[in-house]
Amino acid sequence: MAQQFAIGVDYGTNSVRALVVDLADGAEIATEVYDYCHGDAGVLVDAADPNLARQSPADYIEGFHAAVAGAVAKATQAAGFDPKHVVGIGVDTTGSTPIPVNAAGTPLALLDEFQDELAAQAWLWKDHTAYSEAQEITAKARDGGYPYLAKCGGAYSSEWYWSKIAHCLRTAPRVAQAAASWVELADYVPAYITGNQHPAKLARSICASGHKAMYHDAWGGLPSAEFLESVEPGLSRFRYDAKAVPSNKPAGRLCESVARQVGLPAGIPVAVGAFDAHMGAVGSGCGVGTLVKIMGTSTCDCMVAPLAQPLPDVPGLCGIVPESIVPGMYGLEAGQSAVGDNFNWFVKHLAPAEFGAGAEAHAALTAAAAKLRPGESGLLALDWNNGNRCVLTDPLLTGLLIGQTLYTTAPEIYRALIEATAFGALKIISRLEEYGVGVSEVIVCGGIAEKNPLVMQIYADVTNRPMKISRSGQTCALGAAIFGAVVGGAYPTVEAAQAKMTGVKSTIYSPISTQAATYAKLYALYQMLHDAFGTTDFHGSLSQVMKDLIAIRHDARRGAR
Amino acid sequence: MAQQFAIGVDYGTNSVRALVVDLADGAEIATEVYDYCHGDAGVLVDAADPNLARQSPADYIEGFHAAVAGAVAKATQAAGFDPKHVVGIGVDTTGSTPIPVNAAGTPLALLDEFQDELAAQAWLWKDHTAYSEAQEITAKARDGGYPYLAKCGGAYSSEWYWSKIAHCLRTAPRVAQAAASWVELADYVPAYITGNQHPAKLARSICASGHKAMYHDAWGGLPSAEFLESVEPGLSRFRYDAKAVPSNKPAGRLCESVARQVGLPAGIPVAVGAFDAHMGAVGSGCGVGTLVKIMGTSTCDCMVAPLAQPLPDVPGLCGIVPESIVPGMYGLEAGQSAVGDNFNWFVKHLAPAEFGAGAEAHAALTAAAAKLRPGESGLLALDWNNGNRCVLTDPLLTGLLIGQTLYTTAPEIYRALIEATAFGALKIISRLEEYGVGVSEVIVCGGIAEKNPLVMQIYADVTNRPMKISRSGQTCALGAAIFGAVVGGAYPTVEAAQAKMTGVKSTIYSPISTQAATYAKLYALYQMLHDAFGTTDFHGSLSQVMKDLIAIRHDARRGAR
Repeated sequence: MAQQFAIGVDYGTNSVRALVVDLADGAEIATEVYDYCHGDAGVLVDAADPNLARQSPADYIEGFHAAVAGAVAKATQAAGFDPKHVVGIGVDTTGSTPIPVNAAGTPLALLDEFQDELAAQAWLWKDHTAYSEAQEITAKARDGGYPYLAKCGGAYSSEWYWSKIAHCLRTAPRVAQAAASWVELADYVPAYITGNQHPAKLARSICASGHKAMYHDAWGGLPSAEFLESVEPGLSRFRYDAKAVPSNKPAGRLCESVARQVGLPAGIPVAVGAFDAHMGAVGSGCGVGTLVKIMGTSTCDCMVAPLAQPLPDVPGLCGIVPESIVPGMYGLEAGQSAVGDNFNWFVKHLAPAEFGAGAEAHAALTAAAAKLRPGESGLLALDWNNGNRCVLTDPLLTGLLIGQTLYTTAPEIYRALIEATAFGALKIISRLEEYGVGVSEVIVCGGIAEKNPLVMQIYADVTNRPMKISRSGQTCALGAAIFGAVVGGAYPTVEAAQAKMTGVKSTIYSPISTQAATYAKLYALYQMLHDAFGTTDFHGSLSQVMKDLIAIRHDARRGAR
Repeated sequence: MAQQFAIGVDYGTNSVRALVVDLADGAEIATEVYDYCHGDAGVLVDAADPNLARQSPADYIEGFHAAVAGAVAKATQAAGFDPKHVVGIGVDTTGSTPIPVNAAGTPLALLDEFQDELAAQAWLWKDHTAYSEAQEITAKARDGGYPYLAKCGGAYSSEWYWSKIAHCLRTAPRVAQAAASWVELADYVPAYITGNQHPAKLARSICASGHKAMYHDAWGGLPSAEFLESVEPGLSRFRYDAKAVPSNKPAGRLCESVARQVGLPAGIPVAVGAFDAHMGAVGSGCGVGTLVKIMGTSTCDCMVAPLAQPLPDVPGLCGIVPESIVPGMYGLEAGQSAVGDNFNWFVKHLAPAEFGAGAEAHAALTAAAAKLRPGESGLLALDWNNGNRCVLTDPLLTGLLIGQTLYTTAPEIYRALIEATAFGALKIISRLEEYGVGVSEVIVCGGIAEKNPLVMQIYADVTNRPMKISRSGQTCALGAAIFGAVVGGAYPTVEAAQAKMTGVKSTIYSPISTQAATYAKLYALYQMLHDAFGTTDFHGSLSQVMKDLIAIRHDARRGAR
C-alpha cells in the first residue's frame, strides 16, 4: 500500500506553519513557515492603547497559500510523497480571534471601505480592549441567574467572542453594522479553503463555540437573544444557528481555486477547525489523567475526562466543553495569559547590554539564572504582566516583583519571572485536583519545553512532578494533521491515530527534592500575594513576606557553601 | 584686614573632598577630591554577604593628605589666599562608621596582623551585617524598660555603633579582643590630624555619640555597662568616659606632621567632627522650621528645634539629640536608606543597551521619564531596596514593584523608583508634622538636587511643597568650614556664620496642582503597601490596588490626549 499523508496547518500569533505528516508513525516529512507581514510581527497595535491587538485577515489567506504550497513542494522532493496521497487537512488557530465578515463571509478588512479600520480586522486572542464588556457579561450572567458561566470558570474573559463584539458595537458601530456575522479564525480558515464561507452555512467548531462563546447543549447552544440584548442592544444579531461540531467531522473539501494555488488535488477532506492548544494537546498524546501544557508566549493547559462520568464545574478554569479536544471526552482548558511573554518583556525592556539582545539575551540570562539556587535571590514575582487567566480570570491584574535589594541582578529577576510562571502552573494543577480531576502525568510541548532545560527543571521542582516533553516539535500542526487523518478515513478514531503518531522524548525532568522543598516555602508566599492582590478573601498579614524571603535567601546561600 | 579662610573636609562613601572657603561670603576658593583606592570605589565587599560594606582606614589618611594638600595648592594660586589666613578646619564624615583601634588609637587595619581582615576595617554606615544584633538591642532595651530607644525612633539600627561592635564580638572575636576602643570616623579624623588619637583622650562628638551610640545626658551618657553586657558579654568594655561635645568646640590643633604634608601651618584649630548630613544641613542654611534634605546615594533629613521648648519623642525618627546639628538646638535626624542608590541600582543592573551606561544612562532614562505624566505608567514602587530607615526603621525590608504589563518600559520603572523615594520623603515630613514639628520650608542639597530637575519636580508634586536648592554645591564641606570658622573665632556663633556664608538658588521647584492631585492618589496606594508590608497594623484589603493603578493610568492617559 502507498504511504498516506495528512497536512496540519497551525496559525500562531506571528506566523502560520504547514506540516506534512506520514500517517504511519507521525514522521514529519516537510514543513514551511510563513511570517505574517502586517503590523509588528503580524500584530496591529495602537500606541495609545496597550490593550489592543489585531491582525490582518490577508495574512491568514496569504499565509495558507504560501505555507501549504511550500510544504507540499518540499515534501514532493521526499521519497514516497505524492500530493495524491494526502488524505486530509486539519487546521488549528489562535483564539478567541473573531473576524467580522459580510453576508458573503468575506472579512470586512478585505473590503476597500474598511481596510484601514482596526475594528474591522481580526481581534487577536490577546486583545483586551473589551475588559469592561467582559465584566458586564460576567455580572449580568451571574446576577441574572443565567447558567452560562458554569462552564467557563465563573467569569467571562475580555479575550472572548461576545466581549469583543459588544466592544465593537460600542466603539466602532459602523463596522458592527456592516458585519453580517463574526467568525472565529478557527472556523474561517476551513470555510475559506473549502469555499463554504457563507455565514449561515459554514461549520462552527465546538472548540471555539464552547470555550469562547458560551455555547453548550445544556442551554440549547448559544446564550439567549434576551441575555445578549441585555448586554448590548444588537448583540443578539450575531447568534448563529448551526450546531457546533468537533474536529473529527469535515468542514468540507478543499476547493478548486485554493487547491490549485497550493499544489494539491481538489476535494481533499478538511476537518472542522479548533484552537491551537487543543489540537496541540492531541498531538502531544493527551488522554485521561494527562495534563498537556502548550507553552509559548502564553500557556494553555489541556485535559480530557470521559463524557460518561460526572464532572463538577471547576471554578477558575477557562472552560469545560464536551468534545472540544477529543471526541467522546470533556475537554478541559486552563491557562496562563503570559509565560514566554513575561520573559520576552524582560529581555526587550530590561536586559542590560552585557547580555546582548533577543535570543542571545535569553540564552545568556538563562545560563546565568541556571547558576542560582532556588531562593537565593530573595525575589518573588507574580506572573500577571498580561493579567491572570486561571484561576482568577482577571485581565486587570498586573505584575509584581518583591524582594529587591541594591544587589539584585538581571538574571535573578529573570529566574524569578520563570519561577512565577511555574507557581502559576502549580496553582492550576492544584485547582484541578481539588475538584477531582487527577493529574497523573504532565507532558509539555512548545519551544520553551524543547529549548530551555532550566525552565523545565524549575517546573518539575515547583510542581514536584516529572515534566515529560512531547516528541514532536510541532504538536499543534501534528494534532491538526491527526484530525485530517481521521476525517480522511485513515484512522477510525483520534485515539487510534494518537497511538501511532504521538509520543514523548526520552529526557524527562524529575523534581530534585531539596529544590522542591525550597519552592514549597516560596509557593506559600506566592499564594499569599496571589490571594492578597487577586482576591477579596485574604485576611492574613503580609508583614512577614519580606522577612521570610530573606530567611529563605539566607538558608539557600548557607546551603551553597 | 586680610581675607580669612576655613577649610571643610568632607568624607563621603567613595571619596573625600577638601574645600577652601572665604569666610566673608562663603565663596568657594578651591576644592580637591580624592577617590578612595581600596575595594570597589572605596567599599570593601563580600560576594557571599550582600550586607557587608567596609572601608580601609588607609583611604581616610591618604585622602586627607591628598585632598587638603591639593585644595591648598590650588587656593594658593588664587588672589588673596595665604595658608596663614586659614583660621580653622572642620571635618564631616559618613556614619555610623566605627573603626576598631588599639591602645594607641591606631586603626587595627593599619597593623600588619589585621590588614587583610574585613572585621578590622572601618564598618561603613551601610554595612548591615549586624541586623540580628540590632534587633536584640531593640528588644532588650524595650523589654527591659530601658529609656535608650526614646531618642532614636524606637528602634536601634544595624547600621549603628553598638550593633556593629556586638556583631564583631560574635563573629570576629580576635579583632574584638585586640580592639582597645571603637572610634567613629567623624572622631577619628580630627583625632588623627590633631595628634590626639589616644582613645581615652580624643574628643567624641555629640553628633556621633548621640545619634548612633544612644548617648544622652538624660541617662548620664552612654547606655549602662549592665545593659551592654546583657546584649553581648564584653560589649561594655567599649564604653568611653568622655563627655560628648558639639562641633563648635575644638578637637585640638593641626599637628606638625600632618600640617607639613598638606602645606598648612601647624596649630590651626580643628573643630570636633560631625556627620556629613548634619554639617550639610548647616551649610544649607538649616534653622527652625526648615527641613534640609541631603540627597545622595541615601538621603538624610535634618531639622533643628530650640532646646528651650519641649519636644516630644517622634517614633520612627532616627534621632533627636541636643546640639548635634546647631549648638543650642535639638538636632532632629530622619532619612531614607537608599535614594540615588535605587536609581544607580537600576542603571547598573537593568538599563537596556539603548540607554547607554552610567551617567549617560541616568541622563537618557531621566529624559524619557520626564516625558511621562504622573500615573500614566500604572506602576508603583516601594523604595526599600536598602531597607527602610524612617519611619519603619527596619533594614530587612526590601524593594517592591507593582503594576507591570508586557508594555512596561525601563523609563517607566526608573520614574516609579524616583516617585517611590518621593513618597518615602513625604512619609517623613508627615511624621514630623504629626508630632508638632512644623515644616515651613524644604531646602535640598546634593548632586541630585542640582542636576536632576525631574527629581525635584516630582518631589515638589508629591510633597505638594516648593523645593528650594542650596546655593552651595558642597554644603557638607561648607558646613564643616563654618564650624572651622567658629572654632577659629571668626564668627561668634554658627548662626552668624550661616547668615553670611549660606543661601539658596533662585530656581525654586513649585508643585503643579494637577500633578500633585494624581500623586495624592498614588500616595494613598503607597501608604497601603507601606503599611501592609512594613507593619503589623494593616488590616485592609489590597485587592483593589492593581485596579486602582489601572484607573489612575487610564485617567492620566486620557488627560494626555
